[in-house]
Amino acid sequence: MKKLINDPRAVVDESVDGFGRAHADLVTVHIDPLFITRKQAPKPGKVGLVSGGGSGHEPLHAGYVGFGMLDAAVPGAVFTSPTPDQIIPATVAANSGAGVVHIVKNYTGDVLNFETAAEMAQAEGVDVRTVLVNDDVAVEDSLYTAGRRGVGGTVLVEKIAGAAAERGDDLDAVTAIGRRVNENVRTMGVALSACTVPHAGVPSFELGDDEIEIGIGIHGEPGRHRIPMENADGITDRLLAPILADLSPAPGDKVLLFVNGMGGTPASELYIVYRHAVGVLEAAGLVVERSLVGNYITALEMQGASISVLRLDDEMTALWDAPVHTPALRWGV
Amino acid sequence: MKKLINDPRAVVDESVDGFGRAHADLVTVHIDPLFITRKQAPKPGKVGLVSGGGSGHEPLHAGYVGFGMLDAAVPGAVFTSPTPDQIIPATVAANSGAGVVHIVKNYTGDVLNFETAAEMAQAEGVDVRTVLVNDDVAVEDSLYTAGRRGVGGTVLVEKIAGAAAERGDDLDAVTAIGRRVNENVRTMGVALSACTVPHAGVPSFELGDDEIEIGIGIHGEPGRHRIPMENADGITDRLLAPILADLSPAPGDKVLLFVNGMGGTPASELYIVYRHAVGVLEAAGLVVERSLVGNYITALEMQGASISVLRLDDEMTALWDAPVHTPALRWGV
Repeated sequence: MKKLINDPRAVVDESVDGFGRAHADLVTVHIDPLFITRKQAPKPGKVGLVSGGGSGHEPLHAGYVGFGMLDAAVPGAVFTSPTPDQIIPATVAANSGAGVVHIVKNYTGDVLNFETAAEMAQAEGVDVRTVLVNDDVAVEDSLYTAGRRGVGGTVLVEKIAGAAAERGDDLDAVTAIGRRVNENVRTMGVALSACTVPHAGVPSFELGDDEIEIGIGIHGEPGRHRIPMENADGITDRLLAPILADLSPAPGDKVLLFVNGMGGTPASELYIVYRHAVGVLEAAGLVVERSLVGNYITALEMQGASISVLRLDDEMTALWDAPVHTPALRWGV
Repeated sequence: MKKLINDPRAVVDESVDGFGRAHADLVTVHIDPLFITRKQAPKPGKVGLVSGGGSGHEPLHAGYVGFGMLDAAVPGAVFTSPTPDQIIPATVAANSGAGVVHIVKNYTGDVLNFETAAEMAQAEGVDVRTVLVNDDVAVEDSLYTAGRRGVGGTVLVEKIAGAAAERGDDLDAVTAIGRRVNENVRTMGVALSACTVPHAGVPSFELGDDEIEIGIGIHGEPGRHRIPMENADGITDRLLAPILADLSPAPGDKVLLFVNGMGGTPASELYIVYRHAVGVLEAAGLVVERSLVGNYITALEMQGASISVLRLDDEMTALWDAPVHTPALRWGV
């Protein structure tokens, strides 16, 4: 696997450095320990939002630091949780006195390290709440976690909770809306190819030339099963069926449909998936009110996609539509 | 090569259909012949902008249809020019009476078909001008064209000329600013892997496991030379040297630095390239005033990147900053 990198052990540091230079109008990169904050200090009274996790899922999370979304992001090594010594100063920096919400994807390492950091930050006087994201319907337990994994829904939690914080909701309210998004979103993914962690140098797993992995996670960890390659419509059906079974939306429900690329799949293919997915949802009587299509939570250069369906209510829709200005998501400003 | 597609011959139609559904608030997809327009009819007196070319470079061009950029886009088959019978109605639809500018990447098929369409549209009473984009410094002639190829600079031409049209510039002025952007931008790319045209089913070319192609085009057509794999900084130097030699900027010049992904390369790697590139430009005394990093003109799932450097003047910078609202590029609105 060829990569546009220098020292494989310097990938995160150099990438975040480049990111900070490219978006110097929006973010500040803090090194040693490594975390990213908005360029502007938090507005007094605004609840702070902090997320983080292993690197390799870009633009998640640093790409969502900015107005209307995160106050700080904490990147770990590739596919490795960030440490409490990074999360604590990010939490302190995000606190304007109104408290901080940690948005944590459900992986054992992330959960432990954010928990430890939350306790330490509390000891420094920061009121911390946690929104745990576990939207992946593919598997109950996985290589990296007990319970469902946090995947595509994380982007939607960060956007909607971020908008709630920006409009002035208090700590309880921001936490509640973040959890409400998580409770109403389900996701499932597929891999057509493996990905390679830079310092490992070999693919995380092997897939045959005519084989795909249904229910893949965002680290190439095993999903539900491997099947022979199918066409896009068939794969889309396989992803949507367990999502709809688990979410059990009612006819007439309004939803946000999010077709996410895993990093190595071109936009044209994501739109082919979107096309069939919107048809399936409409056939189930659902109203696709909002859409998002693109590479928003990735697994390095993996080829594949995930589909997320979020059941909307009017408040969530309004918060989704609210202005956002981050490196990776921007509208209304 | 596995792809998220159905019938390989239906890739463009299905993808554009999905695109139209996902962005129904912004665009209208016209079928038979296939072209995409803004949802709103052109404002009377506004110069129309039309671009197009082979599919497989998404989000180019359909992703740039919308306020502040294109009025219409015309997708051909994958890596194949659109035909005059598509370009003519797109041109007529984009015309509000103030004339239309065709933005054409310099490939023989595109140039011929846009020329034919321009003549036919003129015969129907539309005043048509052409901005030919030929920013690729890699090769003088290539498999698909006489003279330099049009690549990454096309995105910058469409944005800046689009903003000029939106502020009310007349046909001569929009044409002139489009040409000025082309004259001041240079691009060069690298491929780490090949890409596969869906209906061909086999990679467009072969690259060894430890080999890269310097000066690649956006169709996998040959570049300057193949070399053994190098690190990101070395590759970045190899792309920037011919760009700077050809552009010959003066110390103190302001530039826009555009690091573009070819489709299969993750954002983290593009930022590693950006990091070194900005250092090289600053060492040459240049001021990097604006940046763009991401997948904006791609070659299907090819792994690789291109670097574009645009020498800015104050007017170009203001037009770059002007509001834009398209599926793939949005700010200020």
